[in-house]
Amino acid sequence: MARTQPTVTELIEGARQRKPRALGRLITLVENNSPRLRQAMELMAPDTGRAHIVGITGSPGVGKSTSTSALVTELRARGQRVGVLAVDPSSPFSGGAVLGDRIRMQKHSLDPDVFIRSMATRGHLGGLSAAAPQALRVFDIAGFDTVIVETVGVGQSEVEITRTADTVLVLSAPGMGDGIQAAKAGILEIADIFVVNKADHDGTQSLIRELRNMVALASLGPEDWKPPIMKTVASKGEGIIELVDQIQAHRVHAERTAAWQSRRLERARAEVEALALGNVRQRFLHWGQDRLESIAADVRDGRMDPYSAADAVLASLGQDPTT
Amino acid sequence: MARTQPTVTELIEGARQRKPRALGRLITLVENNSPRLRQAMELMAPDTGRAHIVGITGSPGVGKSTSTSALVTELRARGQRVGVLAVDPSSPFSGGAVLGDRIRMQKHSLDPDVFIRSMATRGHLGGLSAAAPQALRVFDIAGFDTVIVETVGVGQSEVEITRTADTVLVLSAPGMGDGIQAAKAGILEIADIFVVNKADHDGTQSLIRELRNMVALASLGPEDWKPPIMKTVASKGEGIIELVDQIQAHRVHAERTAAWQSRRLERARAEVEALALGNVRQRFLHWGQDRLESIAADVRDGRMDPYSAADAVLASLGQDPTT
Repeated sequence: MARTQPTVTELIEGARQRKPRALGRLITLVENNSPRLRQAMELMAPDTGRAHIVGITGSPGVGKSTSTSALVTELRARGQRVGVLAVDPSSPFSGGAVLGDRIRMQKHSLDPDVFIRSMATRGHLGGLSAAAPQALRVFDIAGFDTVIVETVGVGQSEVEITRTADTVLVLSAPGMGDGIQAAKAGILEIADIFVVNKADHDGTQSLIRELRNMVALASLGPEDWKPPIMKTVASKGEGIIELVDQIQAHRVHAERTAAWQSRRLERARAEVEALALGNVRQRFLHWGQDRLESIAADVRDGRMDPYSAADAVLASLGQDPTT
Repeated sequence: MARTQPTVTELIEGARQRKPRALGRLITLVENNSPRLRQAMELMAPDTGRAHIVGITGSPGVGKSTSTSALVTELRARGQRVGVLAVDPSSPFSGGAVLGDRIRMQKHSLDPDVFIRSMATRGHLGGLSAAAPQALRVFDIAGFDTVIVETVGVGQSEVEITRTADTVLVLSAPGMGDGIQAAKAGILEIADIFVVNKADHDGTQSLIRELRNMVALASLGPEDWKPPIMKTVASKGEGIIELVDQIQAHRVHAERTAAWQSRRLERARAEVEALALGNVRQRFLHWGQDRLESIAADVRDGRMDPYSAADAVLASLGQDPTT
């Protein structure tokens, strides 16, 4: 019997029933910027926005995966369905297996109410800014209560993804000297909750003092959420109950103020902008390399300045550069 | 007497005479994406393409600045006028002083035929892909024979800038374990010349062997340039004469084949594309945040899918998404 490829409608039906295969295939559509993605997004749109998106970031070695795994355990204990999306913007490889294979995550691999998936996004038209919200929509239709988004690196694009999560955890650990690095990448400003992991190591107190000074420097209004600084030893599950309590508290606070909806507006805005720019970029590529090369040759040889060249390209893309 | 701001024409006249102040101000225009940049580029366009652009990249600590300084010394000894552009894509600060202050570069600071400048590019409309070629044009009109472009980091954007140099040096050093890191960032594929710096340290031979194996794996045609592997101790000036010889040899080879012009075509193409996309992105920002927010709210709340939203935005930007 010939096996036929499931239709998008069938995949979405499967995802609604949290079938791992269907969920995985939909995320693969996102990763590969499949032509079927558009139809999938149209069908999924109405179910947008159910899950609580928790972003986790921090330098390599602070214990992001261990913390994610501990959070999954605690959220499951509270009866939640939990998704994990690990985003690696630098990897050209589909990472479907990478995270699933990780030892720390294996204890969750047989739990039907946990779905773990990593995603590479080099191929996506709109880059990470479009791919991440789209993958989150897949988790949304499957009815996961919380989705943890873990970024692999600490680059600019990771920060931009993480900042659009509903609740952002910034992890650090004593003795890694990563304070400055995190500050440079703009990580510190996006924290809703600071987590000092490996809090049984030397240097915990001075790291907490550093973070406390930083929080004190932030100009917060009386209605603003003041980022708490939580201590954990994720490998032993210590401090995780309190951390989940704070995650919930942040949600309650954000929903009460305008923060929740405005963060989600920002996520949608970034997604739409990334898709639109990706559309323009793609047309660049398809637009007739001959014409682009001939204009680029004029710039190279000094017959045309680069701004006039850009105007010419946009004009023939149907874009009026003077408006 | 009131001091008036020099006109763009005056700045360009000053730059042609290699006046450091005028050169610096023009590069500041690039950094800040000044409204006067367009006029500057129009005036400078005819003088494009004179200097030999040498890109230097490598992980932190391999000795990029020391090597740059040693190269400047040797190129000056050969009677060349030399420019140095240090690009830091992650820094939001104008770096005019940073590099000039560096001790290693100080010996050149009184030489009127050397101009050293660092550049931050966060503010530029077209990002680094547009800012770097524009800054190079400033060096071009000043008649520098060689311009060394040194990138601070090893991220994707640095690689993209470096790859459009006429000659790309990839530096490594023994005992840094950076082989894998460089491979990950795609640095190795862009090398025209491999430089093993600190070649008086342990581990030099095994690093050379590693690089040699890699070069052997590359599928090169009979006409292709085969990247040589050069040993230097830049802090003592050792191996620098031979390195400059190889830089010249690469130029001769590239000019004989199509490589020289096609690399420069790629640089111009990247610049035009970055400016055009930057133009679209800017119009996004100016386009009426109300309308964009209302569309983003529709996406957030599931009333519209993100692709239809992107189409709607592009359509009202005067862009027909269906072509």
